[in-house]
Amino acid sequence: MKLASYLHQGVKSYGIVTPGGIIDLGRRLGHLHTDLKSLLAGDALPLARELADLPADLSVDTVTFLPVIEHPDKILCVGMNYAAKRREFGEMNPAPTLFVRFADSQTGHGTPVVKPSHSVEFDYEGELAVIIGRGGQDIPAASALSHVAGYSCYMDGSARDWQHTWFTAGKNWRQTGAFGPYLTTADEIPDPHALSIRTWLNGLMVQDDNTRSMIHNIAELIEYISTFTQLNAGDVIITGSPGGVGKKRTPPLFMKAGDCIEVEIENIGHLRNMIIDADRPQVSATSHAAAPC
Amino acid sequence: MKLASYLHQGVKSYGIVTPGGIIDLGRRLGHLHTDLKSLLAGDALPLARELADLPADLSVDTVTFLPVIEHPDKILCVGMNYAAKRREFGEMNPAPTLFVRFADSQTGHGTPVVKPSHSVEFDYEGELAVIIGRGGQDIPAASALSHVAGYSCYMDGSARDWQHTWFTAGKNWRQTGAFGPYLTTADEIPDPHALSIRTWLNGLMVQDDNTRSMIHNIAELIEYISTFTQLNAGDVIITGSPGGVGKKRTPPLFMKAGDCIEVEIENIGHLRNMIIDADRPQVSATSHAAAPC
Repeated sequence: MKLASYLHQGVKSYGIVTPGGIIDLGRRLGHLHTDLKSLLAGDALPLARELADLPADLSVDTVTFLPVIEHPDKILCVGMNYAAKRREFGEMNPAPTLFVRFADSQTGHGTPVVKPSHSVEFDYEGELAVIIGRGGQDIPAASALSHVAGYSCYMDGSARDWQHTWFTAGKNWRQTGAFGPYLTTADEIPDPHALSIRTWLNGLMVQDDNTRSMIHNIAELIEYISTFTQLNAGDVIITGSPGGVGKKRTPPLFMKAGDCIEVEIENIGHLRNMIIDADRPQVSATSHAAAPC
Repeated sequence: MKLASYLHQGVKSYGIVTPGGIIDLGRRLGHLHTDLKSLLAGDALPLARELADLPADLSVDTVTFLPVIEHPDKILCVGMNYAAKRREFGEMNPAPTLFVRFADSQTGHGTPVVKPSHSVEFDYEGELAVIIGRGGQDIPAASALSHVAGYSCYMDGSARDWQHTWFTAGKNWRQTGAFGPYLTTADEIPDPHALSIRTWLNGLMVQDDNTRSMIHNIAELIEYISTFTQLNAGDVIITGSPGGVGKKRTPPLFMKAGDCIEVEIENIGHLRNMIIDADRPQVSATSHAAAPC
């Protein structure tokens, strides 16, 4: 099952994405669960699944995708979690390195990603996002995957010239974290560490790896993170980017207005966003998508 | 004016702390502003000020202090912002280094600070907390202080053995960030860079500096942060710790159960918390304070 958050005719909702269109859950379950995060918090995936055979209500091209989870309590991002990326950045730290994104740095599939006007090094990172279903603390790795509601794609847009050593300033610009198109439920992904993950910039493949190359796997990350902080339904763990980022290319390759950035993860989804400049008037995650790229 | 968030007889409220006790604003303004954050978001400090001469409703010793702002949208913490601390840690980065605390890592004045059971290096950091009143983006330094609602003390409890290079894991353990006792409004602090800041562990003064020693001053921090992320009412900027932290002492000096940690900032407040072990049953920020220390 594929679950998306979106705007339709100016109204926020969420639903099941099927080949024939979207089954609108917001109108059916909204009185119980106002958004996808609250659906997960209510342990209501089975309820959604009962509606998965209904005819579609909406055509996909009539909605504006929102970030899969629009307001996670916590977005934890894992840095340097692929061997090739670690080599590129000379990272030696044996523990997972974690930074935080604020929810308002996100945007949805098909909406503009905004290049910060103060950055000349706006870089791409294609990543597997893990969405927590059942929360917990001190979750052992052995049972950690049972806490995962599903997976999605993430394009962790990074202002390298603002990252410095602690990453917060480089990773929190408005509309730089593209999250979507949808959550693919965990039952469809028997092994999240056997998925090809690829990024294209203007059709050129710039990252090409497999989630088996993660250094700290998803279960280990959930164990580690839940040791020091409570995980809740709708929290997001972004599991790190493969090598091939623009900063470490010769010559470097950064994103600029008009570019098209795409992240595809096998069986999970294909995320596509156009880059626009920050000073373009009326940029908003709630405005309709930029011209498709 | 001094504004606190607290529990009284199991009910959350907020009010004005006066020498004679607390004027309960929650009961008077709660229909308009449910908590202190929403009071700030509603630009309602003048409304609160109109009630500041009423007789007190509550004795201070009948309330359990909550974090001054219990659920800030963003808690941005500045690392290495005092010269002595930078020397201790060999920090060379010229830009402000920022990490993030999640709101659920906080606790209030007089409540237990919880030593993580997985840490043997639980360290203190006394810091000046800045609470945003009027939000904004791209705030120039010249007008930045007009966005400050007030100031408070913060004890940024730090699991050094989990900090690694990016700090997230060392700074987000449950009930490790003590925030209080109250917000002292900015009108009472004409110069936030002329305040003595001191930390005591079991009565021993372990940090002793002045906020004039900050490398990046508050106005510069607000300008820098608001360049890459929107600041909102109730957001908190923790401005960094002076030197003298336990990790860099010879021998090192860490906090353990039964210890008393205090942070005092001139004209701002005196924050006091007892350390307890994480495995103590029934630890909760909402339970009444540990034995006073």
